[in-house]
Amino acid sequence: MTQTENATTLSRTLPQTDRTRHNRLREQGSLERSDLEAILDAAFVCHLGVLVDGRPVVVPTVYGRDDTRLYLHGSVASRSLAAEPDAPICVTVTHVDGLVLARSVFEHGVNYRSAMIHGVPRTVTDPDEKLAGLQRLTEHATPGQWTYARRPNRRELAATTLLVLSLDEASVKIRTGAPDDGAGPDAVLGLWAGTLPLTSRWGAPTADPLLPPGITAPAHIVARAGTRQG
Amino acid sequence: MTQTENATTLSRTLPQTDRTRHNRLREQGSLERSDLEAILDAAFVCHLGVLVDGRPVVVPTVYGRDDTRLYLHGSVASRSLAAEPDAPICVTVTHVDGLVLARSVFEHGVNYRSAMIHGVPRTVTDPDEKLAGLQRLTEHATPGQWTYARRPNRRELAATTLLVLSLDEASVKIRTGAPDDGAGPDAVLGLWAGTLPLTSRWGAPTADPLLPPGITAPAHIVARAGTRQG
Repeated sequence: MTQTENATTLSRTLPQTDRTRHNRLREQGSLERSDLEAILDAAFVCHLGVLVDGRPVVVPTVYGRDDTRLYLHGSVASRSLAAEPDAPICVTVTHVDGLVLARSVFEHGVNYRSAMIHGVPRTVTDPDEKLAGLQRLTEHATPGQWTYARRPNRRELAATTLLVLSLDEASVKIRTGAPDDGAGPDAVLGLWAGTLPLTSRWGAPTADPLLPPGITAPAHIVARAGTRQG
Repeated sequence: MTQTENATTLSRTLPQTDRTRHNRLREQGSLERSDLEAILDAAFVCHLGVLVDGRPVVVPTVYGRDDTRLYLHGSVASRSLAAEPDAPICVTVTHVDGLVLARSVFEHGVNYRSAMIHGVPRTVTDPDEKLAGLQRLTEHATPGQWTYARRPNRRELAATTLLVLSLDEASVKIRTGAPDDGAGPDAVLGLWAGTLPLTSRWGAPTADPLLPPGITAPAHIVARAGTRQG
């Protein structure tokens, strides 16, 4: 496995830069590469920030990864993926895990896990590299699907924009657990406080109405129904 | 109700600008204000894009709204909320509704609902306006909580950054339903195709471990458990 081999050469601690250093709420910052990887692996849609005519534009788009790079692609984001060469982008992946309901409005918050990646992406032009990146991306969203579905042909590859972004400059923030005012002056108010968790799950596969009878969903899709996502 | 009164004066169709006009995948664009409102009301965390030192930065943060404005606030995003005056921002709210599993990898996609709002925000300084905005924000995330929890005092209000952003320039995209290759040449491959839906639900409230015994969760929190979010 390439992934395992590469992993041994990577620092398990994320390097810090002016952009990724945690300025505040220090307790929520994580420098563990494993946290970054877990956050990226538990989602398949990111929010990509680019500059368009000097203004920020944030678009949702799908992604995949290997040990050192993020792959970005998406029909959703065509205008953004065509951003100028050498232009910096920011990719953010967020899991919303629930509401933090404190005694005071001021202490209300959100339990979440978020990764932010900064860098200058490279547009992949080599067909083999593009195919390998699309494989990562497809398998990231739906493990087993690259083997099952018809793979891109030359024409489709040419019509696909794929960006690759280094994971070198990444920032991770995580908040978990109870509100912070349980031992403060508001504790005497006698108000309930706690969290309201939010969980995302895959449902049962829904067949395309145009599907001829007798074609059943493959095991790698069926097995996902009912499992947690995120 | 202010909300209802204002609504009658608003065009139900979203105005189009160079930034919000749908350049491609036209069938996915919506110009219905009701779609924008439904997308905003079904979430409470957005992705806020700002420029920091000339580079895009995308941060998750909480929001609320009234008929014409979005309210943004969040400890998560302090550096970003302190962006320069008159600097444009972009706020994107996305619901990921599931995977679109086509016969070909090329036609794979995501069912989603997304709203993107462009504008130059205003920092709220008036304490009454700030309080009203925080009420919108609190009630947006957790209806009933503004009445239940202790409201912000003067010191807390001063420590809170609240931005207000016009909803005038908004773009909505929605994709639903089956893959698009059911009537194409790949239909003969005999592969299963369809969608794998993704649903987010509220769990049961979890009490703060520091909560004294005998304090039960209020009805507006308990009633949410098990309901769909998004």
